Amino acid sequence: MINFKEDEYLHNLNHSCAHMLAQAVKHLYPDAKFWVGPVIEEGFYYDMDLGDKVITEEDIEAISKEMKKLAKDGKRIVRHELTREEALDMFKDDPYKIDLINNMPEDEVITAYSQGDFTDLCRGGHVDTLKECKNFKLIKFSGAYYKGDSNNKMLQRIYGVCLPTPEELEAHLQELEEAKERDHRKIGKDQNLFFTHKLVGAGLPLFTPNGATIRRTLERYIQDKELEQGYKHVYSPVLATTEMYKISGHWDHYKEDMFPIMKLDNEELVLRPMNCPHHALIYKNELHSYRDLPLRIGELANVFRYEASGAVIGLERVRQILQNDAHLFVRPDQIKDEVGKVIKLMFEVYIDDFGFSRDSFKFRLSKRSKEKGKYIDNDEMWETAESQLKAIMDELELDYYEEEGEAAFYGPKIDIQIKTALGHDITIPTCQLDFSLPERFDLTYIDENGEKVRPVVIHRAILGSSERFMSFLLEEKKGILPLWLAPVQVNIVPVNIKYHDEYCKKIQNILLEEDIRVSYDDSKEQMNKKIRQSNIMKNPITIIIGDNERDNNLISYRLLGNDETYSLSIDEFIKFIKEEIKKR
Amino acid sequence: MINFKEDEYLHNLNHSCAHMLAQAVKHLYPDAKFWVGPVIEEGFYYDMDLGDKVITEEDIEAISKEMKKLAKDGKRIVRHELTREEALDMFKDDPYKIDLINNMPEDEVITAYSQGDFTDLCRGGHVDTLKECKNFKLIKFSGAYYKGDSNNKMLQRIYGVCLPTPEELEAHLQELEEAKERDHRKIGKDQNLFFTHKLVGAGLPLFTPNGATIRRTLERYIQDKELEQGYKHVYSPVLATTEMYKISGHWDHYKEDMFPIMKLDNEELVLRPMNCPHHALIYKNELHSYRDLPLRIGELANVFRYEASGAVIGLERVRQILQNDAHLFVRPDQIKDEVGKVIKLMFEVYIDDFGFSRDSFKFRLSKRSKEKGKYIDNDEMWETAESQLKAIMDELELDYYEEEGEAAFYGPKIDIQIKTALGHDITIPTCQLDFSLPERFDLTYIDENGEKVRPVVIHRAILGSSERFMSFLLEEKKGILPLWLAPVQVNIVPVNIKYHDEYCKKIQNILLEEDIRVSYDDSKEQMNKKIRQSNIMKNPITIIIGDNERDNNLISYRLLGNDETYSLSIDEFIKFIKEEIKKR
Repeated sequence: MINFKEDEYLHNLNHSCAHMLAQAVKHLYPDAKFWVGPVIEEGFYYDMDLGDKVITEEDIEAISKEMKKLAKDGKRIVRHELTREEALDMFKDDPYKIDLINNMPEDEVITAYSQGDFTDLCRGGHVDTLKECKNFKLIKFSGAYYKGDSNNKMLQRIYGVCLPTPEELEAHLQELEEAKERDHRKIGKDQNLFFTHKLVGAGLPLFTPNGATIRRTLERYIQDKELEQGYKHVYSPVLATTEMYKISGHWDHYKEDMFPIMKLDNEELVLRPMNCPHHALIYKNELHSYRDLPLRIGELANVFRYEASGAVIGLERVRQILQNDAHLFVRPDQIKDEVGKVIKLMFEVYIDDFGFSRDSFKFRLSKRSKEKGKYIDNDEMWETAESQLKAIMDELELDYYEEEGEAAFYGPKIDIQIKTALGHDITIPTCQLDFSLPERFDLTYIDENGEKVRPVVIHRAILGSSERFMSFLLEEKKGILPLWLAPVQVNIVPVNIKYHDEYCKKIQNILLEEDIRVSYDDSKEQMNKKIRQSNIMKNPITIIIGDNERDNNLISYRLLGNDETYSLSIDEFIKFIKEEIKKR
Repeated sequence: MINFKEDEYLHNLNHSCAHMLAQAVKHLYPDAKFWVGPVIEEGFYYDMDLGDKVITEEDIEAISKEMKKLAKDGKRIVRHELTREEALDMFKDDPYKIDLINNMPEDEVITAYSQGDFTDLCRGGHVDTLKECKNFKLIKFSGAYYKGDSNNKMLQRIYGVCLPTPEELEAHLQELEEAKERDHRKIGKDQNLFFTHKLVGAGLPLFTPNGATIRRTLERYIQDKELEQGYKHVYSPVLATTEMYKISGHWDHYKEDMFPIMKLDNEELVLRPMNCPHHALIYKNELHSYRDLPLRIGELANVFRYEASGAVIGLERVRQILQNDAHLFVRPDQIKDEVGKVIKLMFEVYIDDFGFSRDSFKFRLSKRSKEKGKYIDNDEMWETAESQLKAIMDELELDYYEEEGEAAFYGPKIDIQIKTALGHDITIPTCQLDFSLPERFDLTYIDENGEKVRPVVIHRAILGSSERFMSFLLEEKKGILPLWLAPVQVNIVPVNIKYHDEYCKKIQNILLEEDIRVSYDDSKEQMNKKIRQSNIMKNPITIIIGDNERDNNLISYRLLGNDETYSLSIDEFIKFIKEEIKKR
């Protein structure tokens, strides 16, 4: 998605288009007064005072029409420098602009830009003429309090976007449409997967049965996969004393992102932002020999991070996070092997099981810089680690680049990014080395010579968090989940409930017995409406039951996105669907 | 287990025995001074100042011997009434007793009890002669700060117990031994299942891989069982606003048991003590028709309760609790059926799957009393509900009794108690009706006539909490878990690691592939020690691999508690163990 603030020409173009919007509004509503009209990542907006007038769809059409006229006319945009007195005089009828002028620094050169009959106070920059602004679109409108304060007057805000060519505008609008379709909040609502509620709190979504089925299936899937690969899963409490986070260093470096302290008896407890220290204590609870390593401690671990209530988004950015976390306690000579296994596991999950392409991954080896004091002091460890990370990435033929100075304080890492369908790069899986945690918690194992030595810790996550992964998956798959993950795998629709209800119920019970997630639409709607609804809910399989099915003990079904109907005996259908589920 | 404070004769007997202990100590350590010697639930103790002397095992033997002599001698115990002046004079050499006297209320009649050469300040009561105290046992000893304050002197405390007959003493000591053997904290340590750590906090156990395997298996087991029976499982956050708990009524009635408030932005958040309100909001998030009910919303839900740090015990009483919780939203006419299903599910779990006897259950129907204002005002609902509860308990032929005035404010309930191996009655499963929650959260469904009416909520738990259920199960089963639950199902022991290592590893990998939880003891110990260790760890199956097994592709195994060895081919063994696991 384009960021309109990042490209200078696009910035100026949208800035000028905002002025053109104001000019059009002024033509239609001569009493209009204007507050600010900035360029934002998504284009531009303008806040305006139209008295008691509230903007409607029809107004937007009229304003667009007037803007088109102005663009066709194509006046030049002219810059003026003003003294403070000239400026105050020029805008004397507009209290909003007077406010702006009075708040400008003493030494600032005040400028205004004119185009034909319209002049606006503005720092610039702009394009040369309004002609360039002809490929625009007004996107949406809303009320907005003056200076964002609900005690102030409500102004009218209109959002728009402007691009250099009609083709680019068209492509951008399509992309917006696509993003709206893919928005996991919309999908979550359509399929009834989750919701938030002000009595619970910001950034704390509740998973309804459908959403919870997806989440449970994902969590069991990754846990089983890890158990198969020799991970040991644990349960640790979501609380710890602040003392623990002082030892771990989170208290010094991460306090701002943590929840407030709770005092109980003589303890200070805090909701954990990370569970590394808990796993360090579990490691430390037993003696370890070099022969016991690697020890892979995994957990489906709730962690809590303070996000401003304005910053939370659906499942993407939440305050309670279920992390698919693990800490691998390894000998220094095992780094390469273990990191290799993590990357292979990640490919198995993302490529084999979720169908992402290997090309969508980007890898960066983040190394330390020469800067002294910025990194934990252990030259040998850094060199061993960085060379092992390089060796495994070479061996796996990963296309990666190296960057000095991007390592964490406590060790080098592999940064993994995935390109989304909308072209963003996002970080979900992680793989970081840590030489600090074993020091801070005095973790050891007994080596071949009977000496106590320090293990290295690898922090890693595959799905990241359940919440974030679900939002990612729903957006990438446009809400169409594979059969094994779909909350309802099969939905049964009768041709006529009067004649087919009994057989539908029979089929439903047989499938339930086979642990297939099945629903039966016994509402009063017509068959075609039920089939449409089944498609909206993205049910992978819709079974349609009529006379033929009932009389011959058959199941007729359609696959999502395909209008063809297939018929099988009940046993054959069960065999078919079980194989499909197993395939992932 | 006997409560020595509850029976008057046992109380007096133990009280006299405490005096006899003090008399014996005085004989052996003439400078000894005495603080208090109360009767407690477990028997008695006495705190004494022996100067710098610290009690040892040998001292306990000598004291016991002296006590036996005193009991044989059998002096009468004589009561004296004293004026305050007489008392202060009598104990003038003992600053502890002077302290006690000075702290007695002005109007209290001061008494002392004598037996031969020993007199103690004491309120009584006592038995007649020391003869009755001959069946005693000194159980343990420890240091104890004077008045429990660590700034004060450390006194010596000796615990003991006294019973009327040698047989009763013997039986009691055996019971104590049994309780010690069954203590889940001891089992947890022996089998490495969980631990607590002061950096994490009181009442917040960490589950190590072995304990976590049991817990995960239990949680998936009950969740799967509920899903099969039509429950819908959800995930809701462990936090909510205080606003929500004000609406639910917990704020008024349960605040003392809740964690402290956390302020974030303009919200007041609190760790939830219960999740009923979350489930009410999930119910409310959709419209419901009478045809949709019952709706059974389940969750493996972490809740948090403030327990004083001194009150927490192992897994039995903790501050973070994973509840196997569900709320059934039902029509008033569905109460009987749904409660019946809950009780049947409970029997299925406890009797069929965990092997408890039906006789170990006690049922009480807790009804409202006539008292006005103590119960939610809805006569019709109470009558319908109580009669339906009776009807289903009759139908299931439960042996129950009815008690008026034991209902909750919000509805009647069935109290279920289970008798433990040590004879305690404990409450784990619950089944309560609630007419209040639907009112408070304005929950409705549309009935046959298109009218909005209120559902009834049934709160129920089967396993209770994972933590409590595990402590219960470990104590009942003495740490011997059934195959399907055991953290390590099979442990492999080589006769001689030099010759059998390779075949052992092969067997290990084959079993891992088959999802069997297997360990291989490749330590340097001798075979017999490994087998003993395998029994201590309560591994249900120990495989022993020697030449014969290796050369003929066999598996020889022993079952826990049975010295016989059976041999099977690898395939036969896999078939055997899988069937055993499936059986539960």
